[in-house]
Amino acid sequence: MPSLSKKSQAMPPSPIRKLVPYAEAAKKRGVQVIHLNIGQPDIKTPEVALQAIRSLRLEVLEYSRSEGNESYRTKLAAYYGAHGIAVTPEQILVTTGGSEALSFVMGCIADPGDEIIIPEPFYANYNGFAMANGVKVVPIASSLEDNFALPPIETFESYITPRTRAILLCNPGNPTGYLYTPEEIRKLADLVKKHDLFLVADEVYREFAYDGKKHHSILQEPGLDPYAVMVDSVSKRYSMCGARIGCIVSRNPDLVHSALKFAQARLSPPTLAQIASEAALETPQAYFDEVIGEYSARRDLLLEELSRIPGVRVAKPQGAFYCMVELPVGDADHFAQWLLEEFQWEGATVMVAPAAGFYATPGLGTREVRIAYVLEQDLLKKAVRILGEALKKYPG
Amino acid sequence: MPSLSKKSQAMPPSPIRKLVPYAEAAKKRGVQVIHLNIGQPDIKTPEVALQAIRSLRLEVLEYSRSEGNESYRTKLAAYYGAHGIAVTPEQILVTTGGSEALSFVMGCIADPGDEIIIPEPFYANYNGFAMANGVKVVPIASSLEDNFALPPIETFESYITPRTRAILLCNPGNPTGYLYTPEEIRKLADLVKKHDLFLVADEVYREFAYDGKKHHSILQEPGLDPYAVMVDSVSKRYSMCGARIGCIVSRNPDLVHSALKFAQARLSPPTLAQIASEAALETPQAYFDEVIGEYSARRDLLLEELSRIPGVRVAKPQGAFYCMVELPVGDADHFAQWLLEEFQWEGATVMVAPAAGFYATPGLGTREVRIAYVLEQDLLKKAVRILGEALKKYPG
Repeated sequence: MPSLSKKSQAMPPSPIRKLVPYAEAAKKRGVQVIHLNIGQPDIKTPEVALQAIRSLRLEVLEYSRSEGNESYRTKLAAYYGAHGIAVTPEQILVTTGGSEALSFVMGCIADPGDEIIIPEPFYANYNGFAMANGVKVVPIASSLEDNFALPPIETFESYITPRTRAILLCNPGNPTGYLYTPEEIRKLADLVKKHDLFLVADEVYREFAYDGKKHHSILQEPGLDPYAVMVDSVSKRYSMCGARIGCIVSRNPDLVHSALKFAQARLSPPTLAQIASEAALETPQAYFDEVIGEYSARRDLLLEELSRIPGVRVAKPQGAFYCMVELPVGDADHFAQWLLEEFQWEGATVMVAPAAGFYATPGLGTREVRIAYVLEQDLLKKAVRILGEALKKYPG
Repeated sequence: MPSLSKKSQAMPPSPIRKLVPYAEAAKKRGVQVIHLNIGQPDIKTPEVALQAIRSLRLEVLEYSRSEGNESYRTKLAAYYGAHGIAVTPEQILVTTGGSEALSFVMGCIADPGDEIIIPEPFYANYNGFAMANGVKVVPIASSLEDNFALPPIETFESYITPRTRAILLCNPGNPTGYLYTPEEIRKLADLVKKHDLFLVADEVYREFAYDGKKHHSILQEPGLDPYAVMVDSVSKRYSMCGARIGCIVSRNPDLVHSALKFAQARLSPPTLAQIASEAALETPQAYFDEVIGEYSARRDLLLEELSRIPGVRVAKPQGAFYCMVELPVGDADHFAQWLLEEFQWEGATVMVAPAAGFYATPGLGTREVRIAYVLEQDLLKKAVRILGEALKKYPG
C-alpha cells in the first residue's frame, strides 16, 4: 500500500472534532448535549440574503470570475468605505471562506520552512493551513491574566529571524475575544515596517465589539499599505457560515496579483453563495444592533454565571463571541471528554473546546477551555449551571 | 516592501486567462468574440437542482460537515453504485469543486519535492495545484497522431524514481477528449501495484462518452482499492460549474482520513451548492441522453468543419467536450492573440486556448489549440468558418 505524505500524517486533527464521537455516543444514550464548543451562531441569516437565493433567476449555474463577481466586489468596497476602510474593488479578491483566504495568503507570502509569528492561543486551523503550506508557526504566548492582550512588542522583535515572513493576528480574537487597541496595532505596524514583514489580520469578527469599543483595522493604519493583508468572511457577520465566502483585502497590488494566480487555479468561488453574500450587504443596521446587543447580553450573563463557580478564572472578552475560561481541573482535555462520557445533570451535559489545541506551545492552556456564547440566554445559563455541577463531581 | 514567496512567483498564470485582456479590448471595439476557449457549458442546469435552491427553507445558513452532508454522500454512493462503482458514503469526501479535491489529494500523497507522473497535454491547473504543494510534475508526452492515447507503459515505468508518488490521469481527458480503454487502465493498475504508487483519476467528464463507448473508472478495476483515488465534480455533469462541489472517492480509508484533516481545516464545503448538488442527483436520464446527443452532434460538426481547412490536423475526441487541433501556424500563442487583436470576419472573431499551456515540456504543443465545443451548432459552425478565414490571412 502506498504511504501517505509526511505532511498529511503530521496534520493535526481538529481539536474540536476529536470529541465529536463522544458527543454522538452521549446523544445516543439520550443525554442532551449543549454545545459550547462551536462557532456556529444560532442567529438567523438576514432575510435579504436568503430571499436573493429563493428568487434565483439564472438558467445556467456558471463559474464566476476567479477574483469574484465584479458587482459583489464593487459593493464590498463600498461596505468597507462605510466602515472607514478606503479600498477599491481591485484590492479585493473573493475567496471560498476566510479559510481559503488564509491559505492563499500563506502560499503568497511564505515558502516551506518560512516562519509566521502568531500570538497564542490562536484559531487552531491556522496550524492546518501552515502545515499544508509547509510553513512554521512561531507562537508568542499571551495570557489570561491580561485578557490576552498583545505580548510586549520586544518579545515579537526577539522572535524575528531571517525566515520570518509575517505576523498574523486575529482581531477580535478567536478564541480569546480580545480586541486589539489602536496602540497595539501601531506597535505591530512599526515592527513590520522596520523588518519588512507582512502584517496579516483575520478580521472576520470585526462587527462584534462590545462596551462601546470600536474595532481598529490594520487597513486603517497609515503607511502600512504594502505590508497589510486583511482576511474577512461573511460567515459570522451574517450568520452565513455555510456560504463559504470570504475575501482577501490588500492595497499591495503584487500580493493581490499573486493571490489571483492561486484563485485562478481553483477557477472560482461559489456562485450561489456570492449572490447571497452580495444581497447580505443590504442587511439593515438594525440587524447588527440587535445581534450585537444579544451577544453582549450573553457575554455578560456568561461572565456573571461563571464568576459564581469556585476556582474558575475568565478573560473578559470585548469582541467576537468566545470566552477563554480556566477551570480548576488538571487536564481540560480529560475533563471535556469526561463531561460527555460520564456526566449528566438532569439529563444534560455540555461540550466545551479544550484550549490546548489553540496553543502551539506544548503544556500551555491545558487547564483552559473555549466557550462560544452562540446559544440563547436560557440555554447558556443552563450550560454554565451544568459546568458548575460537573466541577463539583469531577474526580480529576 | 516585503517580498512574495518564491512559490507564488513561480506559479504559472492561467494559459487561458492571459488572453482575457485582448478579448475584452476586442469587445470594446465592438467585435463579437466567440469563445472556443473555455469549458463553461451553455447547457441548462437541471431544473430540479435550481428548484431545490428556489424552495430553500432554512433560517440559518450553517456549516455542513467537513466531509459533506450525510444525506448527499449517501445518495452519491447510490449514484456511483448505479454506474457500476460500488462505494460507501464513508469512502466519499465532498469538496469545494474538483479543484479542491485535487489539491487535497496532492497534499495527502506527496511532500515537497515528490513527483507525480502525468501524461501531457493535461489540464493546466494541475500545474497550479502541484506548484502550491511543492510537488514536481513529471510529464510523459502523448501525441495527436494517435488521438492522445496512453503512451507505452514502459515509458511510464522508465520515469519512475524513488520520489514518484502517483500517476495522475484525466479520463476522459481535458484537453484531449481521449477516453482511456479498460486495457490501458489495467496496464496502469499493474504498474502502480508493482511500484506501490497511487493512481489518481480525474473523472469529472465520466458521463460524456460518445460513439457508444463506455467510460471505465479506476474504481471498477479489481485489486486496486488501496491505490485508486478518484476525483469527481458536479460542474460538467449538471452544467453547474459555479456550484463548486466535487468529491474524492477512494476505498483506501487512510487516504480518506488524511483528506478529512485538510477538509476540517477549511471547515466545510458550500452548503447551498450541496443542496443543489443533492437535488441534481434526481436529474432524469433523458437530460443526459439529450446533452450527450447534443455534444456528440457538435463534435461531429466541429470535426467535419475543421477537416475542410487546409493544413489543420485534429485528434478525434471520444469523450469530454474538448478537441485538440494542430494549426498551420508557427506559434499558436501568437495566432490566438492576433485573432483577438488584429482580425475580424463580418464583425466577429474567435478566442481559442493555445495548447502550450497544457504541456509541461517546453516546445510541445506550440502549434496546437484546444477548442471547447460548448456552443450551439450554428455558432460553432460560424466560429470554425472564422478560424478558416483567419488562417488564410494570418501572416505568421
